[in-house]
Amino acid sequence: MPSTLTPFFNAKGVAILGASTNPKKLSYGILENLVSFGYQGEVYPVNPNATEILGRKAYASIADVPDPVELAVVVLPVTVIMDTMRQIGERGIKAVVIITGGFRELGEEGAKVERAVKELADSYGMRVVGPNCVGTIDVRTGLDSTFIKGLPPAGPIAFISQSGAVCGGVIDLIINSKIGFSHFASLGNEMDVTEADMLEYFAEDEHAKVIAMYVEGIQDGPRFMEVARRVSRKKPIVFLKAGKNDAGAKAVSSHTGSLAGSYAAYQAALEKAGVIEVETISQLFNVAWALGTQPLPAGKRVAISTNAGGAAALAADSLAFNGFELAQIAPEIQEKLRTKLNPSAQVSNPVDMLGSVSPEDYLWSLGNLDADEGVDVLLPILVPQSLVDTLGVAKAWFEIGKKTDKTLLTCLMGERSTLESEQYLNTAGVPVYAYPDEAGRVLRGMEQYKQLLKKAVFSPVVVENVDHNKMASALGLVKDAQAVGEYETRIMLEAYGIQNVPGDLASGIEQAVKVAEKAGYPVVMKIVSDDILHKSDSGGIALNIQNTEQLRVEYDAMMYRIAKNEPEASIRGVMIEKMAPKGLEVIVGMRRDPTFGALMMFGLGGTMVELLKDISFKVAPLTDGDIEEMIERTLAGKLLKGYRGSAKADIQAVKDVIARLSQLSLDNPEIAEIEINPLIVYPEGQGAISLDSRAIMGK
Amino acid sequence: MPSTLTPFFNAKGVAILGASTNPKKLSYGILENLVSFGYQGEVYPVNPNATEILGRKAYASIADVPDPVELAVVVLPVTVIMDTMRQIGERGIKAVVIITGGFRELGEEGAKVERAVKELADSYGMRVVGPNCVGTIDVRTGLDSTFIKGLPPAGPIAFISQSGAVCGGVIDLIINSKIGFSHFASLGNEMDVTEADMLEYFAEDEHAKVIAMYVEGIQDGPRFMEVARRVSRKKPIVFLKAGKNDAGAKAVSSHTGSLAGSYAAYQAALEKAGVIEVETISQLFNVAWALGTQPLPAGKRVAISTNAGGAAALAADSLAFNGFELAQIAPEIQEKLRTKLNPSAQVSNPVDMLGSVSPEDYLWSLGNLDADEGVDVLLPILVPQSLVDTLGVAKAWFEIGKKTDKTLLTCLMGERSTLESEQYLNTAGVPVYAYPDEAGRVLRGMEQYKQLLKKAVFSPVVVENVDHNKMASALGLVKDAQAVGEYETRIMLEAYGIQNVPGDLASGIEQAVKVAEKAGYPVVMKIVSDDILHKSDSGGIALNIQNTEQLRVEYDAMMYRIAKNEPEASIRGVMIEKMAPKGLEVIVGMRRDPTFGALMMFGLGGTMVELLKDISFKVAPLTDGDIEEMIERTLAGKLLKGYRGSAKADIQAVKDVIARLSQLSLDNPEIAEIEINPLIVYPEGQGAISLDSRAIMGK
Repeated sequence: MPSTLTPFFNAKGVAILGASTNPKKLSYGILENLVSFGYQGEVYPVNPNATEILGRKAYASIADVPDPVELAVVVLPVTVIMDTMRQIGERGIKAVVIITGGFRELGEEGAKVERAVKELADSYGMRVVGPNCVGTIDVRTGLDSTFIKGLPPAGPIAFISQSGAVCGGVIDLIINSKIGFSHFASLGNEMDVTEADMLEYFAEDEHAKVIAMYVEGIQDGPRFMEVARRVSRKKPIVFLKAGKNDAGAKAVSSHTGSLAGSYAAYQAALEKAGVIEVETISQLFNVAWALGTQPLPAGKRVAISTNAGGAAALAADSLAFNGFELAQIAPEIQEKLRTKLNPSAQVSNPVDMLGSVSPEDYLWSLGNLDADEGVDVLLPILVPQSLVDTLGVAKAWFEIGKKTDKTLLTCLMGERSTLESEQYLNTAGVPVYAYPDEAGRVLRGMEQYKQLLKKAVFSPVVVENVDHNKMASALGLVKDAQAVGEYETRIMLEAYGIQNVPGDLASGIEQAVKVAEKAGYPVVMKIVSDDILHKSDSGGIALNIQNTEQLRVEYDAMMYRIAKNEPEASIRGVMIEKMAPKGLEVIVGMRRDPTFGALMMFGLGGTMVELLKDISFKVAPLTDGDIEEMIERTLAGKLLKGYRGSAKADIQAVKDVIARLSQLSLDNPEIAEIEINPLIVYPEGQGAISLDSRAIMGK
Repeated sequence: MPSTLTPFFNAKGVAILGASTNPKKLSYGILENLVSFGYQGEVYPVNPNATEILGRKAYASIADVPDPVELAVVVLPVTVIMDTMRQIGERGIKAVVIITGGFRELGEEGAKVERAVKELADSYGMRVVGPNCVGTIDVRTGLDSTFIKGLPPAGPIAFISQSGAVCGGVIDLIINSKIGFSHFASLGNEMDVTEADMLEYFAEDEHAKVIAMYVEGIQDGPRFMEVARRVSRKKPIVFLKAGKNDAGAKAVSSHTGSLAGSYAAYQAALEKAGVIEVETISQLFNVAWALGTQPLPAGKRVAISTNAGGAAALAADSLAFNGFELAQIAPEIQEKLRTKLNPSAQVSNPVDMLGSVSPEDYLWSLGNLDADEGVDVLLPILVPQSLVDTLGVAKAWFEIGKKTDKTLLTCLMGERSTLESEQYLNTAGVPVYAYPDEAGRVLRGMEQYKQLLKKAVFSPVVVENVDHNKMASALGLVKDAQAVGEYETRIMLEAYGIQNVPGDLASGIEQAVKVAEKAGYPVVMKIVSDDILHKSDSGGIALNIQNTEQLRVEYDAMMYRIAKNEPEASIRGVMIEKMAPKGLEVIVGMRRDPTFGALMMFGLGGTMVELLKDISFKVAPLTDGDIEEMIERTLAGKLLKGYRGSAKADIQAVKDVIARLSQLSLDNPEIAEIEINPLIVYPEGQGAISLDSRAIMGK
């Protein structure tokens, strides 16, 4: 099935609306690119004041452009955009790149125009890339609708960028190194075509072997996660998020809220999407390039062959930091290495052949390391020296690369004297780095993709025995409240089968006595008032009440304290709850992220939550594996397993609570935050109960 | 006072022993360098088979070389090294670079030769750089005893490298970018001249403004710390440690031992030395270059002026990650910016002037941002575009640099089109990066140096009332034991004025009853045996014993369990100790690092120590400030301060215990590890007591 996005990369003809005859104009640059990189389709400059530009016949209007024309590139001012789009629509062109800026990025006025253009485009069934973008490139067809100078060689990387400037900067940064690309797509304001659309397109393109993304923000989080999860099974997606420190969770009141900022949601969403997140532009292309050219590492054992111990030490540090290790070279391989290398060479890992190394030394060492079954990755390193044939060494590495099934990453530690060899290696599909510490990070990205492919297909947990009537009644109680106290939250949890500590709301002392008798002494008493945020500070908590007599005394004392400390507060009563036996205190919570939805949280609970920050996140819906990972990634998880002789806790009960709170969050989008803290977990088989809980309703 | 190292950089004449006539030999390269970079001294090739090399008269032997000659560079084989050194000594030359390898790096045989050469050199009063190094360079005098191709421009960075290859690789990496250096010193095996000697030399050199170091290992840790602490007050030292993951703490038995690996010791030692540690080669020179060319940031508020929002977002992320922030631009400055910039430009921070920016735009924006008192750092960013005058922009940045007192770091996001501008800026002393995320890490390094300069001069805490006789008696008890149990460790702590929980060793039940009565019930009973490592697992601990009767029962039960579980163990008795009231449990420990000495540790204690890994390290001796930092850096420190309403703990008592354990460790080098875990800390004014402790003697 042909995609509606095909014309952006493989149109039979392209019209440039606003093509200038002035070489100092960007539109001239676009035309220049369209005629410079071997594009075989027709190219039609549209400009009423020209007859010909760059040897191509110019047309007065898009209506005059003959067939075939499948893509329109608009470089006209925003003031004429509606007319222009109408003309393009009338001409029957279904794909438009709007380079022009001046839309949503300038505020509400521009956003209004953008919406109108989108409606118009929809009415003609047109797909639009942009506005406010630099266009699209297909490196193989030569269709380049950008004004960026130069075109990298054809290769495996498809790059999706939400910044046109970053797109241009990247080409400037990598073009000399001969890293190969299949496509570039600068998406601008994403009026119509989004990063998820592009992902779907590149998923089907045979030349795009790996997708690199620069993203500032995602509009439709759930769709992105769904598409990326699917696409990442077919080819790796490497992802750089810019703007990590945008506020986002400024005015939040729960622990989950304050700990789960918007970037935490991004990280959880990217993980769910199966995306490999990196931290810098250079990592983005290093990781993508290796994934696009090399087999995934079979294991974590790396063999280094080098002419410089120092460079190897830096590489080894970065390997260890990224979870890889130096392979133990088999004794018989070490023996063999010794037979031909410099007698002073070190034949254990790193294999150090000393400064004045020859291409043959690398052929010999790498050939033998390749034969070692205890080696998964080959990492040759050369520090150029006067008497060393750098290009010859690069050729030796390539020879090894042709033969080996192992992952091959290389380092030429230099810049002045290494360009030719760097280009040679990259052209041959052998990744090469100038700094020995780069390989570790790349391998970590490759390992992440390997682990992703091993994961079971997504299948969310199913929660049974939900009492929807009870939930509805709890929501009915909440009405217009924003902050929801323990009383109503208890009912919500109950509706979803999560056990609360025995107890109930009592509106006076006599009722309190009844509740206490039913729950069983000793009990705890907590004030219930929408106006009191910090119960403890206001004197609204009394612990360890042993009997009715003490309950009456404590009740009077609490009412006295509250009247004094919170004279304005309207009191709904007191919660009387059984003092629960001690157990491990954990926290289970949810914050609804505006982009990605229910962000579930788990970690060590109690009063030290924000101090310890022992928390993990996942975006709901969750699979069994997700829940296990959430638990395993925390100290709480280690303690639950039975740390240092303490009994193994009821992990199954914790999993069940997480699954149920996740289901509750998915079913009830009006809840913005909900949190159980602490959830007390008892030894295996004895369950877990919520000791305190609260919620925040929608925004 | 002239330094004995002066001839390595500024000799009146240099002789090259083993200078070859063959351009394919390294020694030829050395001679070539000595005559190529403007060195004004005499250059004497020594080669019995040549009359002239590279236009310089050759001498048959070093004895024939005329005055002035102050430095000998040896490129002869290790087999003739002793003779050669003797001849150099006889000739009266006091400085020798031994390029030749084949010494200690090849094992004991080579180490023997190295020691002999060192003795010989000492007998002549000669200083030796190397062996197994690439030599030294003074960029200004042109004295270049290496065979590395090319010489970077003169500038502020003195580079000390323990790897010759890294030295060469670095020159290859940076030479095109025009980063300026004062010296290079490749130290090889450090037979004589060490990194500390070089630090002292560069401290006095007016051209060396900042010292960059690549270090694999330090031989004399205390001297390095002492010298670096002094030098770092005068000029910044930027430090890259290679080989971070060398084992080191393999067979250790205390918590402190297992948590305090050799790299933890390095980090603590580097901090004490006032050294700025970086993680990669590129950071090493980025940080050094900025420190050598720019004023320290007055604060953490950064203003970005850019033509690309994406690049600015990446920069802002890296600023936040490194503890810096985007400045709030004053409203009047924003107004002023608006008057001349593109109407669509964003005038809040980052100031985004859109793609087609002009040099004048940067002059205007940066000039006004410079005038904003709320801005400490200027960070202009340009992504090159077809219609932008990149070099013009670079010149505008330099103009601003001349005027401003603020820190100026810049980014040209490109490679293909930026080299000329990059060279222009670096030559002008304006640091420039290809990736927008590099500036954050650089600023963090600068901030670290600023904080160092603020620190009080080093003045270790003094501990009084040490009972040296008691300590001696405790050490007497230990004799040849390696593992020291609580009984003897208690006495050591007591000798240094650290309070133990009341109790004593009892060799039978009757003595146990007496001790318990003296300590006061309830008590805890622990088995004391050199053969029992895990008391708890063997049934050797009984808690909460309420009275004599119970003590007798528990004693019999324990003896029965031990006899069954540890039939071979020789039992010294039981420790009877008062059950201490609850308090905050912390750990205070020491591991003696073979390089740097007593490494002190503090953190959350109890059984979760290794799970929480809430620990901080400092190398003894400690200052008051050190102890405060040790405490503040941990969660334990936050809890001590009184977290969430709990009472403030007796921090003064904790400080005192750390100071005393540190003194104990300094005074008694025969103790390899010692640890108090837990130290129970009570509310303010109520002290802290050791509840359990142990030590390891020797190594």
